[in-house]
Amino acid sequence: MANLEKPGLEVCLSPALLHLYDTKGAIVVIIDIFRATSTITAALHNGAKCVIPVASVSECITIGENLPGSITAGERDGKIAEGLQYGNSPLEYPAEFILGKTLVLTTTNGTRLLHMVKGASEILIGSFLNLSALCDYLISKNSRVLLGCASWKDRFNLEDTLFAGAVVDRVQHAFDINCDGARAAKHLYAQSKGNYIDFLTDSSHYRRLSAYGLQHDMEYCATADLHPVVPYLDGNQIII
Amino acid sequence: MANLEKPGLEVCLSPALLHLYDTKGAIVVIIDIFRATSTITAALHNGAKCVIPVASVSECITIGENLPGSITAGERDGKIAEGLQYGNSPLEYPAEFILGKTLVLTTTNGTRLLHMVKGASEILIGSFLNLSALCDYLISKNSRVLLGCASWKDRFNLEDTLFAGAVVDRVQHAFDINCDGARAAKHLYAQSKGNYIDFLTDSSHYRRLSAYGLQHDMEYCATADLHPVVPYLDGNQIII
Repeated sequence: MANLEKPGLEVCLSPALLHLYDTKGAIVVIIDIFRATSTITAALHNGAKCVIPVASVSECITIGENLPGSITAGERDGKIAEGLQYGNSPLEYPAEFILGKTLVLTTTNGTRLLHMVKGASEILIGSFLNLSALCDYLISKNSRVLLGCASWKDRFNLEDTLFAGAVVDRVQHAFDINCDGARAAKHLYAQSKGNYIDFLTDSSHYRRLSAYGLQHDMEYCATADLHPVVPYLDGNQIII
Repeated sequence: MANLEKPGLEVCLSPALLHLYDTKGAIVVIIDIFRATSTITAALHNGAKCVIPVASVSECITIGENLPGSITAGERDGKIAEGLQYGNSPLEYPAEFILGKTLVLTTTNGTRLLHMVKGASEILIGSFLNLSALCDYLISKNSRVLLGCASWKDRFNLEDTLFAGAVVDRVQHAFDINCDGARAAKHLYAQSKGNYIDFLTDSSHYRRLSAYGLQHDMEYCATADLHPVVPYLDGNQIII
């Protein structure tokens, strides 16, 4: 007889709430739409050998110095951090540049959440850029899932939650969902009517990054399925 | 020249995120729709002398024993807690019963958040039952506001956030709002189209309390403006 029980799916809205969820044995999806997980997805689909996510600028520099064929990247306050070579934009990493290279990337929110998750069976990278590929994969695995929003310095944010809602909307038939975070995310997704960037124009992060002239960047990050891959953490590297 | 700057308004979605907000000098609204803040609002409007919120059952019993004219109330797992006299339902406290009495009430989430808030200029009680009265008061004060969702054991919940969204919708013209928690709450409110209880039927807390047969209770808690008062904390007592 087939097992009719569906696996659970929950949404954690901030790293500060992560301790409330059981990550042990779960598939955990890291979500940092503006812009860590979008950049990681784009770089890998464009041929990066791997992405090494690190927490600090100094660590980024050290690893870059010791790793031939690597480039270091990261921003602080919307500018390339001192000592690093490139920024956080997915548009900086087209195939003709990133192919075969290792991207050593430092970001604040996404990297931090990624390093906080303990005991997961898999840690995946989620972004609008790989939305359908990710959803297909989650459905195929038939295993418990936690969607983890990286948020902004632990503060709830709209873009990560909207993406979680887009995932919930697509995979809900395959999961047993009893989580108000997931319900709220789905409601936000319904409110957006699929016009992600229009919906996100009135959000804290959009306003913050707009001040740096990054509207085009954010529009790219809010575009579905440009990079149909499912990046995952393997040791200290993210690969596809 | 008139001061055209509007005060800020933010929404904190869980007590576990409270440290991210500046409560000092702010008006903080405690929100615990199912059912602490609904019961407090109803009891006070029905003539209770005051409500004393306490964290534990034993504290509730001790205060009740030493306070003539008081009644002790509180539930654990949907039943009146051992040693207490009444439960958490707003329907248990009609005027003919509660008039002139002190209600010593122990609840888990609402009381905890209330005791966590430090340095606020005022601590108010918010529920659908006093929605308009609360909103009118907030607008009249022209002062910074934090809407604090009591949530469920630190987990985001739909009913408190929906209420926060109803408040945001009504007061937004009078405040400067740049908070994704507030935006999400407002979107949820928009999704509900004002049909609070229908919207909340698919929520964790509704499901949990339904198992105890409390549907009618929750319907009452989701009814706007039955008790147009603005309860506030004065020392260790909540009064109107």
